[in-house]
Amino acid sequence: MSLLVTGIGELVTGDPQVGDGSPLGVLSGAAFVVDAGTVRWVGDAVGAPAADQAVDVAGRSVIPGFVDSHSHLVFAGDRSAEFAARMAGETYSAGGIRATVAATRAAGDEQLAAQLSRHVAEMARQGTTTVEIKSGYGLTVADEARALALAAAVTRETTFLGAHVVPQEYADDPAAYVDLVTGPMLTACAAHARWIDAFCEVGAFDVDQARTVLEAGRAVGLGMRLHANQLGHGPGVQLACELGAAAVDHCTYLTDADVDALAASGVVAGLLPGVEFSTRSPYPDARRLLDAGVTVALATDCNPGSSYTSSMPLCIALAVREMRMAPAEAMWSATRGGAASLARGDVGHLTVGARADFAVLEAPTYLHLAYRPGVPLVASTWAAGRQVA
Amino acid sequence: MSLLVTGIGELVTGDPQVGDGSPLGVLSGAAFVVDAGTVRWVGDAVGAPAADQAVDVAGRSVIPGFVDSHSHLVFAGDRSAEFAARMAGETYSAGGIRATVAATRAAGDEQLAAQLSRHVAEMARQGTTTVEIKSGYGLTVADEARALALAAAVTRETTFLGAHVVPQEYADDPAAYVDLVTGPMLTACAAHARWIDAFCEVGAFDVDQARTVLEAGRAVGLGMRLHANQLGHGPGVQLACELGAAAVDHCTYLTDADVDALAASGVVAGLLPGVEFSTRSPYPDARRLLDAGVTVALATDCNPGSSYTSSMPLCIALAVREMRMAPAEAMWSATRGGAASLARGDVGHLTVGARADFAVLEAPTYLHLAYRPGVPLVASTWAAGRQVA
Repeated sequence: MSLLVTGIGELVTGDPQVGDGSPLGVLSGAAFVVDAGTVRWVGDAVGAPAADQAVDVAGRSVIPGFVDSHSHLVFAGDRSAEFAARMAGETYSAGGIRATVAATRAAGDEQLAAQLSRHVAEMARQGTTTVEIKSGYGLTVADEARALALAAAVTRETTFLGAHVVPQEYADDPAAYVDLVTGPMLTACAAHARWIDAFCEVGAFDVDQARTVLEAGRAVGLGMRLHANQLGHGPGVQLACELGAAAVDHCTYLTDADVDALAASGVVAGLLPGVEFSTRSPYPDARRLLDAGVTVALATDCNPGSSYTSSMPLCIALAVREMRMAPAEAMWSATRGGAASLARGDVGHLTVGARADFAVLEAPTYLHLAYRPGVPLVASTWAAGRQVA
Repeated sequence: MSLLVTGIGELVTGDPQVGDGSPLGVLSGAAFVVDAGTVRWVGDAVGAPAADQAVDVAGRSVIPGFVDSHSHLVFAGDRSAEFAARMAGETYSAGGIRATVAATRAAGDEQLAAQLSRHVAEMARQGTTTVEIKSGYGLTVADEARALALAAAVTRETTFLGAHVVPQEYADDPAAYVDLVTGPMLTACAAHARWIDAFCEVGAFDVDQARTVLEAGRAVGLGMRLHANQLGHGPGVQLACELGAAAVDHCTYLTDADVDALAASGVVAGLLPGVEFSTRSPYPDARRLLDAGVTVALATDCNPGSSYTSSMPLCIALAVREMRMAPAEAMWSATRGGAASLARGDVGHLTVGARADFAVLEAPTYLHLAYRPGVPLVASTWAAGRQVA
């Protein structure tokens, strides 16, 4: 059953070969045809081929669905009181993760699955069609495997993050915890995961521990990602570049050597401005990365501690306001950048052969995502050609 | 037909006499009854009286509808290109208003009314139940009167802002324009307006012109409000205090004497963080005002030039992140603070006798408005006891 999408005021294709000559490939007066979940034709609406069905978006703009390359959606509990205390002056520390670990371990499968579905649906209402979801609030073999099995039911992009923080019961023996993560926990989790990740930061895991974890994941066929350089300078970014990880996320504190390593290696820098917003921290300097030729992804990092937003539009607005990204750059990083972070060629753009994942905006242009911060502009969201929100 | 609202996880009443002892009057396990558009009973759900109908909000939180005390919703056109240029480094100036004036004058009544309705509905979806709407993009007798007639069709809180900027055709003779505003334009507009306002700023109107305009409005029975101290220090705040205006909005640049004058006069300071977000300007210091005992209102300033957000939740999140307001203070300023700015005793709270204007949040507590920035958390909005979004 083919579908013609027409009446599009502005279409962001993500194809640099068409349209306005920018990397976004913006077309006016365009239409596209979807069949079997895939974009089959894109071009001027006047010459559009016939299709079994048609939807007229009445002058609204259409963008590729957002690719949110960093989230932690398998959790229970709420840390709004910690948030309020932080806003009153307390400092964010990685240790707060343990509060969510306790709540998550105590939660039943159904409760976790229901919360996960609610958040994925909330993301869909905001235009997100691909989301990476990490474990990391279980931190036992059974709880991490459970988290990943739940995540795998809602996304292909699952990430084993046993090395999120050392759990309380291993506080005196972190080496033993790393052995657990790279041994039985990895064995139990690998089947449910596409990626392995570690939090390389003071208060979490040092560079040698992070290397051990990522190499163990790689050895069983997982792709590598890393959390690093969030709370201060450190060796994590260099480690990700040395190992050839797909992405290193946060990148808030970078030396010139870090920026050079990112540019030379092609590792995607994932910037997560919701974290800086919600921890009242300095924002990463996206301009510096872009000017150096680094590929930048924007993601929400949706989690109950440091960034409980699920809004890619907010991330775009913050990237423009606070990180000196142009609106076009932020739009690209929230779609094709996220796809690059996840090594996905099929999403983040609307060109022939891509998955027909898109959002219809209650706006004449994608610029409104930054120009109209906080306003829910997503009129509808479509995944593989079907309306999901 | 009475309505019982029950199943409320957390109720923000805005009544300092009840609940947690804070100015917000937060209750757990409460219910309330609405009849003829008014709150008739508030108390523990266990002892709730019978009503003709009941709605169970299933553990969600309920807050008073937001009172957005500053907006400019009667306009045509779009300034997204100006926004993008500003984000690339150009400075905001009041002169950009003229672009919207040209587009608004050229627009037909139906087009303006449709755009206005769309924005009011967009606000309702975000929990706003009272909105002040200014003229100020017409700047001729007929165009200002038209704007106010359109605004009066959707809100009681209409404000005549002929003194928004000196239009191009009076650029060489601003005194003649002030004569027009205080003469024939005021005569034509007063019947449609509750308030008079002026933009007292370099590039707009000086303090003597602003005084002349406000006094003329007062003489025909309008309440006084003022835009001042947005782009730099200036005499506007002192003028508002001297005249006993209901509110002076922006207040980004304040001397100690300005803060003292606000505290002594009781004039409400309207803070509009969407402006600072969208013009990349320093935020006003809400903490300083609150600590001095000034009444603070938060509002969107929704307009196509300096702040095209309609989101009171975003204003709350920005006030907490950037202006050192506690979440409870921001919540208060977005409801009771807005009501104080508009001299309205009947809105901004949910106590017996108040208008039954409320929003149901997809969240266990109002804290999520700041804790979950950008996320559309408003599940439904009710005005005078009827669901409007």
